[in-house]
Amino acid sequence: MMVEIINIGDELLIGQVVNTNASWMAEQLNMSGFRVLQVSVVSDSRQHILDALAEAESRAEIVLISGGIGPTKDDITKHTLCEFFNTRLVFNQEAYDDVASMFARRGYAVTELNRLQAELPELCTGIPNPMGTARGMWFERDRSAGGKTIFVAMPGVPFEMKAMMTGEVIPRLRKCFQTPSLYHKTILTQGIGESFLAAQIEHWENELPANIKLAYLPQPGMVRLRLTGVGDDAQVLHDEVDAQVGKLEQLIPDYIFGYNDETLEEIVGRMLKERGATLATAESCTGGYIAHLITSVPGSSDYFKGSVVAYSNSIKETILGIDPGTIFEYGAVSKQVVSAMALAQQQLFKADYVIATSGIAGPGGGSPEKPSGLTWIAIATPETLSVSHFTFGDSRERNIRRTALQALNMLRKLLG
Amino acid sequence: MMVEIINIGDELLIGQVVNTNASWMAEQLNMSGFRVLQVSVVSDSRQHILDALAEAESRAEIVLISGGIGPTKDDITKHTLCEFFNTRLVFNQEAYDDVASMFARRGYAVTELNRLQAELPELCTGIPNPMGTARGMWFERDRSAGGKTIFVAMPGVPFEMKAMMTGEVIPRLRKCFQTPSLYHKTILTQGIGESFLAAQIEHWENELPANIKLAYLPQPGMVRLRLTGVGDDAQVLHDEVDAQVGKLEQLIPDYIFGYNDETLEEIVGRMLKERGATLATAESCTGGYIAHLITSVPGSSDYFKGSVVAYSNSIKETILGIDPGTIFEYGAVSKQVVSAMALAQQQLFKADYVIATSGIAGPGGGSPEKPSGLTWIAIATPETLSVSHFTFGDSRERNIRRTALQALNMLRKLLG
Repeated sequence: MMVEIINIGDELLIGQVVNTNASWMAEQLNMSGFRVLQVSVVSDSRQHILDALAEAESRAEIVLISGGIGPTKDDITKHTLCEFFNTRLVFNQEAYDDVASMFARRGYAVTELNRLQAELPELCTGIPNPMGTARGMWFERDRSAGGKTIFVAMPGVPFEMKAMMTGEVIPRLRKCFQTPSLYHKTILTQGIGESFLAAQIEHWENELPANIKLAYLPQPGMVRLRLTGVGDDAQVLHDEVDAQVGKLEQLIPDYIFGYNDETLEEIVGRMLKERGATLATAESCTGGYIAHLITSVPGSSDYFKGSVVAYSNSIKETILGIDPGTIFEYGAVSKQVVSAMALAQQQLFKADYVIATSGIAGPGGGSPEKPSGLTWIAIATPETLSVSHFTFGDSRERNIRRTALQALNMLRKLLG
Repeated sequence: MMVEIINIGDELLIGQVVNTNASWMAEQLNMSGFRVLQVSVVSDSRQHILDALAEAESRAEIVLISGGIGPTKDDITKHTLCEFFNTRLVFNQEAYDDVASMFARRGYAVTELNRLQAELPELCTGIPNPMGTARGMWFERDRSAGGKTIFVAMPGVPFEMKAMMTGEVIPRLRKCFQTPSLYHKTILTQGIGESFLAAQIEHWENELPANIKLAYLPQPGMVRLRLTGVGDDAQVLHDEVDAQVGKLEQLIPDYIFGYNDETLEEIVGRMLKERGATLATAESCTGGYIAHLITSVPGSSDYFKGSVVAYSNSIKETILGIDPGTIFEYGAVSKQVVSAMALAQQQLFKADYVIATSGIAGPGGGSPEKPSGLTWIAIATPETLSVSHFTFGDSRERNIRRTALQALNMLRKLLG
């Protein structure tokens, strides 16, 4: 089933807004068995929208439109759709009641503008918008070659569009086109680059059954592997994909840290909570970023005591009590200093587990012996102290991110 | 001058990659006086690329293409362009020499694949690629209605495309189309929402001369205002825009923190460096995020001593020495506690300036008196202690971001 996405909005054509709607919609469609053939971004102009609709109709069975259905005068999509389908706006009581009750709950009065929003093209089916006041619009039109084309217009506001796509549009499309069962599982890996990972799992990948596809989704510091299975029986499919995930787990057990939408900071947080254990960090090169990741998880105050960001050597000495002689002899970026930081922080914050980092974040500041990107990580547990070093690259932002993910994954393995 | 952007690549149509190339290209074109009429994203397929080229030629004077010019077999843009322009590939010695010398510098041998990359369509002008091995291609074709259409194909790799656009393509386009002088200045504001800001500067905005346009670019925690002036004399234009910026500075002096691409953490860092002063943070609700922002700036170790992330009350008491009775009486999220945190950290880290935060990041954890989003910020200077509170919203991520920007701007004003 071929889909074309039309995103409408001047803000997308002057570079003010990155078109994240298109990639999100494409990913959701792809995961539901629909193929996106083209994305067209056009301005809030009548003729341009009409042209894009006609071109899309000529090549796709499904046309998904986002943007320009709000209440302000530059939102002309609804009027243009009426012209394209040769229909007129009529007042829709159900749409009005939805908005009125949403406003009543929030204590607002319904305005004339909201009344206008309840007018929908006579030919369309309205699609509820749980997150906003503008309904979606679903049109169908017969193709001269037989069959029909479906057009769905949605809001451009990302969270409104996403709720409408997930809750209404994709389920309806799957019903119309009776797509086969699909099952996705994403395996999250850390600590190995894409090409090395591909080499390690090449044989397994080649042996995958024809109905299961693999996609590599690399990000700085991690690679996600998405398996997508297609089949007629949902339960059989589920078992087939899970069996392949099981084989992969045996192949690369050290690199897999989680599944689907989990994050390392959530996983580590859950493990600490289950143990009733506490965590603290002592950060130099990561400058508080690990503490930031951990505290981005709601409820992290249950297990996270806090951090000392010991950015200057004087803080390493006065707050963490590192011997100035050790720093002088080995340098701040060393096994000795990062180990001392972890053990000192464990005492100071009375924490069960501690992550400590010391490195050269770059881009400058390196030397032949200690290049930019060199990072030492120490993890203290109630029983052990683990220390490792890594040499990342020249980008400060990526070095900080990769150090943080590496450290969280080291902690996860020690908790496991 | 109407421009159409064609981005080629299957990865854009399955949602694996967000199309940041389009927004970046659109912004650069817009700032140089060209208007983007449409963005079309198509797959790596011959017929689809041919159709997109023909449609673009029918409506635009300039067609900018990115993607699909690499050396692998799925990169078919070059062959498809030959077909579209009815030309053939010929070996280009200059292109070959460029690649050979780039490889020699890195100690690689030139492969047969690289030799193939030096073959370019006979009808095109090659565009140097300072960042990679694939040359850009510049074509011109007469329009039946008179005039000509320019087509430029560039790599899809963002940093290669950006270097080619900035260094070659935009200067050549401006020469071809003799666009007038343009001058941009972006004014960065913090601490006021878009609609309140618009109301405060409405009169100024209405009085702007016709050749100077204003764009609002809101982000969580800040609003950027971009002025774009168009004129014939670069110096006159420069003075005109700067005069308007001067008027704006008098209207909203409290909210403007910087210009163009600066960040608050860079500005504050520069001010501290100029004074030879040091900074530390004592963070509760921001969980290390302020330290992370400050240390994301290269060279921040010159002025940033570090942070205590006092996430649990026990750390506030044992490390910062806050009186448990104060926490019991007023709560951790209070003027009393955030003030004590700032003053204690100033002593502990021997820092000239301290930012302290305590709030309810949410979602959840609030009460009628202290709702989710309530944040106290204290700034200690060598002479003073300033304390303010804010009530942001329900999103944890946005509350942390807004608190950090608000705190950095408070510090900036005290340093100014």
